[in-house]
Amino acid sequence: MKTAILTVGTEILFGQIVNTNVAFLSRQLNNLGYDVMYHYTVGDNPGRLEELIHLAFRDCDLILTTGGLGPTQDDLTKETIAKAMGDIIVENPDCMKYLKENYERAGRTMTPNNLKQAYMPSKALVLPNDAGTAPGFALENDGKMIIAMPGPPREMTRMFELQVKPLLQKRQDSVIYYRMLRLFGIGESSLETVLLPLIDGQTDPTLATYAKEGECSLRIASKRASKKEAETAVDEMVEKVKAIVGDHIYSYDDEELIDVVGKLLLDKKITIACAESCTGGLFAGALTDVAGISEIFERGYVTYSCDAKETELGVKAETIETFGVVSPEVAEEMAAGLAKKTGADLNISVTGIAGPGGGSPDKPVGLAYIGIAYKGKVKSVKSYYRNVSRKWNRHYTLLSMLYEVYRLIKD
Amino acid sequence: MKTAILTVGTEILFGQIVNTNVAFLSRQLNNLGYDVMYHYTVGDNPGRLEELIHLAFRDCDLILTTGGLGPTQDDLTKETIAKAMGDIIVENPDCMKYLKENYERAGRTMTPNNLKQAYMPSKALVLPNDAGTAPGFALENDGKMIIAMPGPPREMTRMFELQVKPLLQKRQDSVIYYRMLRLFGIGESSLETVLLPLIDGQTDPTLATYAKEGECSLRIASKRASKKEAETAVDEMVEKVKAIVGDHIYSYDDEELIDVVGKLLLDKKITIACAESCTGGLFAGALTDVAGISEIFERGYVTYSCDAKETELGVKAETIETFGVVSPEVAEEMAAGLAKKTGADLNISVTGIAGPGGGSPDKPVGLAYIGIAYKGKVKSVKSYYRNVSRKWNRHYTLLSMLYEVYRLIKD
Repeated sequence: MKTAILTVGTEILFGQIVNTNVAFLSRQLNNLGYDVMYHYTVGDNPGRLEELIHLAFRDCDLILTTGGLGPTQDDLTKETIAKAMGDIIVENPDCMKYLKENYERAGRTMTPNNLKQAYMPSKALVLPNDAGTAPGFALENDGKMIIAMPGPPREMTRMFELQVKPLLQKRQDSVIYYRMLRLFGIGESSLETVLLPLIDGQTDPTLATYAKEGECSLRIASKRASKKEAETAVDEMVEKVKAIVGDHIYSYDDEELIDVVGKLLLDKKITIACAESCTGGLFAGALTDVAGISEIFERGYVTYSCDAKETELGVKAETIETFGVVSPEVAEEMAAGLAKKTGADLNISVTGIAGPGGGSPDKPVGLAYIGIAYKGKVKSVKSYYRNVSRKWNRHYTLLSMLYEVYRLIKD
Repeated sequence: MKTAILTVGTEILFGQIVNTNVAFLSRQLNNLGYDVMYHYTVGDNPGRLEELIHLAFRDCDLILTTGGLGPTQDDLTKETIAKAMGDIIVENPDCMKYLKENYERAGRTMTPNNLKQAYMPSKALVLPNDAGTAPGFALENDGKMIIAMPGPPREMTRMFELQVKPLLQKRQDSVIYYRMLRLFGIGESSLETVLLPLIDGQTDPTLATYAKEGECSLRIASKRASKKEAETAVDEMVEKVKAIVGDHIYSYDDEELIDVVGKLLLDKKITIACAESCTGGLFAGALTDVAGISEIFERGYVTYSCDAKETELGVKAETIETFGVVSPEVAEEMAAGLAKKTGADLNISVTGIAGPGGGSPDKPVGLAYIGIAYKGKVKSVKSYYRNVSRKWNRHYTLLSMLYEVYRLIKD
């Protein structure tokens, strides 16, 4: 089905915000077998918005919109869509009830402009927003459908996953089935190169690689008459891919590495402790994002200075002196000291050069050593891909730590 | 001048690439005083591209395009623009010379499809590409202008800075100046409500509010004949806004809260230590994202369990027993214990309920208490906005901590 994505928001036209919503929705729609023909962005301007709706419907049968559903005066998407679809805006009792409850729960006073969010096109299917106050909606007329979602990415993605996706799946006649594999420790071009024999001349299933902040994804998709046929085709291809790059795959189901690791630790009841230098709390921060993690994570240390490494973890001053603070030796002493202090099953440490300064030809910016004390043994591994930026380097080091934990405990 | 930005590229419609070009160009155009009315994205499809050019020219006098200038068969932007503008494509001797030199210098053999890049609309002003092989061009007809640039961001931004920007500056008669204020501790609707007297009936400067993950932004913009006039108008409005919501403003220049706090700590050489429960490392992780922070941040603790709070920070078991682990009393004992242990100038602690479970009517999910030991005094503050998700609640708590630090040390 031909689809257009329409973004409403003056802040996008000002360039204050990078439009990640439209990239997310395009990926999702393509995965569901919808053909995305156009992206349009307009400001909070009803006339231009209405014109674009009519234009999009000349070619397309479906329009997804984001933005302009908020409580402020310039949020006019709802009214404009209703008008373009020959509908009117009415007070929606469910929305009103939900809105009031939301404000009561938060102990906040509702301002008059918030009431706007309880009005909906009369024929709309309301899509509740459980991550914000502005509900979305779907409105159909004469075979054409508009689905309107809020602009904040967190609210939009949640609404899409929970409500829009099932709605769109139902409207499709051929079935697209896909699996998104997630890989670490291999670059996108290397991945494509080793998979070329599988990619070349392949029409179904299709293989597509994506790069993402130090990681790679591989999408294996098949479009068939039945779900079973598509599943079989995809699963066979997954086995072929696994035979080539299985060592790098940590998820066959598009999971985040932190979620895979968190689940493994919880399932296996492996207690863990961490001592971080260059990542400075990112590992503990990521781990504690996993609900229920307190069962296996009890404490962590950010030992940023040499002094902190010595007094908190018992790293010897002469080890730092001899090998440098960014060294396998220091990483291992950190992990060993941590194990002694916490008694956790798995103790992980890290020391590295986040940048922008501090690098040398021997030890470039971006280099880190990860120490691990597990089952009575202490070891270290090197983490280095390339120096991009302080933020990127720290993120890559975090992924390396998580991947090491994954490799250790996956079996 | 009314402007549209037209992105050409199937990979954008697939969502494989986030369209950062359009955000860059929008910012640049707005800064130059051009009104960006539309963003359009189409695939490599001449029919749809030509249609959009005609559509954009109904409202706009300028179109900037990116993408589709390459040597491959599906790169058809140039031919399509020429057609839409009533021009034809001819071999351009300068382009041909440049192209040949380029290939010779690189020691590469030119394939026949590369010759395509030496063809240009006959009336085009060629814009050389010194970061790639595909030149851009500007083409004018009857007061309407199209400027076509290549798609790769590095090539496009360089071509824009060096060649397009001067071209656009020459065509402009008015100047836009704006400031972006950042606020914490006030919702978007409340912000708009208190600023209504300034917003209502205001045509220049304009005020626009934006919500962003627990924070708010306020853009104040003016379009005048000279930069000086626009600056004066904006600065006067900033003062009026400050008089109303000054307490919530932490940046007048679109900075992130963490950057503002990091800079203050570094400038004032205030050493800091943290002990985190519900944020589990996010505060330390955010702080260590600031380059050079090791000067004032030496160590941090993630004391997730009660035991960790007691053994690491000296929180009394009876305090936890009597008031609960999420309480002002525990937060204060954490901060006091931390101060004793680290000797840092500012010691900050946090204990809260991140969720999804663990809430009660008295202490809902999302609630946190922040303890602060600073200049010999220990106090605590409550942080609660609403319960959204574990991730969001933790992020909001982190912002609350940063904002407390900001308030304490800003003067």
